[in-house]
Amino acid sequence: MKTYWQYNFPGNIYFGENSLDELKNIYATMNNQKTLVITDNGIKNSGILDVLKEKLDTFEIPYEIFDQAKPEPTVKDVEEVLNVYRNKDIDILIGLGGGSCIDLAKMIAFMLKTDHPISYFYENKIDFKAATIIAIPTTAGTGSEVTGVAVVNDEERNLKVGISSNYLKPNFAILDPQLTVGMPPRVTACSGIDALVHAVEAFTSKNYNEFEKDYQADFRGSTVLSNLFAEEAIKLITSSLVAAFKDGKDIKARSNMLLGSLLAGLAFSNSGTSISHAMAYAIGGRVHSPHGEITGLMLPYTVKYNYQSNLEKFNKLYDMCLPNDNSTSVEEKENKLFEYFIQLLNSINLPTKLSEIKVQETDLKPMTLETLGIARLMNMNPRKATEETLYEVFKEAY
Amino acid sequence: MKTYWQYNFPGNIYFGENSLDELKNIYATMNNQKTLVITDNGIKNSGILDVLKEKLDTFEIPYEIFDQAKPEPTVKDVEEVLNVYRNKDIDILIGLGGGSCIDLAKMIAFMLKTDHPISYFYENKIDFKAATIIAIPTTAGTGSEVTGVAVVNDEERNLKVGISSNYLKPNFAILDPQLTVGMPPRVTACSGIDALVHAVEAFTSKNYNEFEKDYQADFRGSTVLSNLFAEEAIKLITSSLVAAFKDGKDIKARSNMLLGSLLAGLAFSNSGTSISHAMAYAIGGRVHSPHGEITGLMLPYTVKYNYQSNLEKFNKLYDMCLPNDNSTSVEEKENKLFEYFIQLLNSINLPTKLSEIKVQETDLKPMTLETLGIARLMNMNPRKATEETLYEVFKEAY
Ligand SMILES: [Fe+2]
Ligand SMILES: [Fe+2]
Repeated sequence: MKTYWQYNFPGNIYFGENSLDELKNIYATMNNQKTLVITDNGIKNSGILDVLKEKLDTFEIPYEIFDQAKPEPTVKDVEEVLNVYRNKDIDILIGLGGGSCIDLAKMIAFMLKTDHPISYFYENKIDFKAATIIAIPTTAGTGSEVTGVAVVNDEERNLKVGISSNYLKPNFAILDPQLTVGMPPRVTACSGIDALVHAVEAFTSKNYNEFEKDYQADFRGSTVLSNLFAEEAIKLITSSLVAAFKDGKDIKARSNMLLGSLLAGLAFSNSGTSISHAMAYAIGGRVHSPHGEITGLMLPYTVKYNYQSNLEKFNKLYDMCLPNDNSTSVEEKENKLFEYFIQLLNSINLPTKLSEIKVQETDLKPMTLETLGIARLMNMNPRKATEETLYEVFKEAY
Repeated sequence: MKTYWQYNFPGNIYFGENSLDELKNIYATMNNQKTLVITDNGIKNSGILDVLKEKLDTFEIPYEIFDQAKPEPTVKDVEEVLNVYRNKDIDILIGLGGGSCIDLAKMIAFMLKTDHPISYFYENKIDFKAATIIAIPTTAGTGSEVTGVAVVNDEERNLKVGISSNYLKPNFAILDPQLTVGMPPRVTACSGIDALVHAVEAFTSKNYNEFEKDYQADFRGSTVLSNLFAEEAIKLITSSLVAAFKDGKDIKARSNMLLGSLLAGLAFSNSGTSISHAMAYAIGGRVHSPHGEITGLMLPYTVKYNYQSNLEKFNKLYDMCLPNDNSTSVEEKENKLFEYFIQLLNSINLPTKLSEIKVQETDLKPMTLETLGIARLMNMNPRKATEETLYEVFKEAY
């Protein structure tokens, strides 16, 4: 049994309006300043890239720009960027955009420092420092600005791999809610609900002391610190997601969502996520839904599945989501919480059934087996899943 | 007005029984491992140093030991250690003991990397990386294991200076409550109440956005993150200080105190402390009381002084300290909270009047002026202090 817990912090955080101004002080602490900004076409067209460029110009920071990042970067995408920039003495990567832009920046940051192909790191740990990473999110969801995870699509091997290392935690995260105001409602919904799933799964994951003495992983179960972050994230996101969805200009709601997803990132980057994410990986290989649409869809069903395995945690979750409800029995609370998440999905226009996102019924079995194979995440789940019980969850959600 | 906040994290934290085992994994990530352990006679005689030595030997980590650290290290102490170890290729400092041992380790860690005398850094910022710092506290109080502050006594100049830099935040903090079991009741009381003052002052310090746009300092006012840490610290310390004082072997109480002082450190290292600490510096120059005895003594009086300047925060503090009290008016709550802190001091055998610790009444005036001069801390106080109002607080506490 593990008798102690561990918490790995990310770099420094700057949060609030005009926090990009802090770039001046950040760069003042660094000797080599040659920077590559990684972003995408949407960010460029929205004018957000111009905002960053203006700051960098004002502060006389030399930079180059790669603005062709794609959603869910592939191995080929990474290699293409590397081919262009490997010999250009880049010391600092700025990831500006959604999770994909930040993930691509992380991958370039460590791949610049090695001659191995990226596939080498599917199995081997990164054991060297990456280039400096500055993450500037424009969506509220992945928490990538404080996590050590970068997801890459290996199309050749038909794999989606999360490369994970404390060396991939951004050195600086700059979060300005103003940059998220332009996010369209559907992106707000998908990324926002994903942040909620991060917080819920971090909060309810197995406790650190339920693992073996020698358990070594980046995800290590919930602790007093991850719980602190996760609880605050749950309160912020449940109180603001619908408002941010309905009125993108509601800056208070935008700020709460950005803060909530940051705190969810601080939580799950150490404790881990669990069953909804494992199922989502299996589902995601078969349909073309955004990640958050799938994790969000699974949330009501997995919470129901897990509820009675840790009453203390799930009753607390019920209290946070439904502070004015007066249910007394466990069954009532469990059902109310299920209904609450279904209604939340409805009110942000997200599907609540796998059939709606074109999952085939015949895929439920193979998806069940695949999910069970994702040990890194399934290890974290508070309730043990078997082929039978997990299949039931898939069927209920179908 | 500052529109965004900033949070600087310390290094990694390991918390719980047998967390010293983690030294193996920590050292596995480092190339150069030549270590200097800084500790004191008490730790050596208690057998705690042997526990650490056994671990280092088992993991085949090469080290030297300096076991003559004194309470409140002086400039001369620092220089003596430097003279012996400057040319011994030390890469890693382990501070094992109370705040003084950890502070001395921090000072050696950065002084090894510069040719300036230590007094140079009274005015100038540290702008280079220190040697790696591993903090292993054996008391629960200073939070030094996660803060960037090291206090040094300059006897020549008759000054006590807090050298402060993010580069002084330990890279690793290892906290095992078992190592605190041997702390005598008086040390438990003084260091424990100081941790509570850290948490209260971090929680109630001015908000980050009450400062000017260009305000730059290591202490920057309270934020959502520092509040999160401070609130949890207040709950843990108020629920466990008396128990840890009464029965040093109560491992649950010891663990809560160690966690509480860690969280208080995470809070005040970013938000800052305020009036009690400023007053304590002025008082500490005149009497020979431990730091915590003085900050603790001032707590009831300063909370009373500040209460009405931020009702939201102080009412919350009242709720945390007195969850079962039903006072309704502000005056009642203020008085109850004052009485609560007085009783808390009584129950851990600490003085509640400056006259008890041999402060001279004629010193109250000069102490008032001195306190007002400590802008770094007084800037943080929620209520403005003038010569008149501050003198009143001193008189009430006399
Ligand atoms: Fe996710
Ligand atoms: Fe203190």
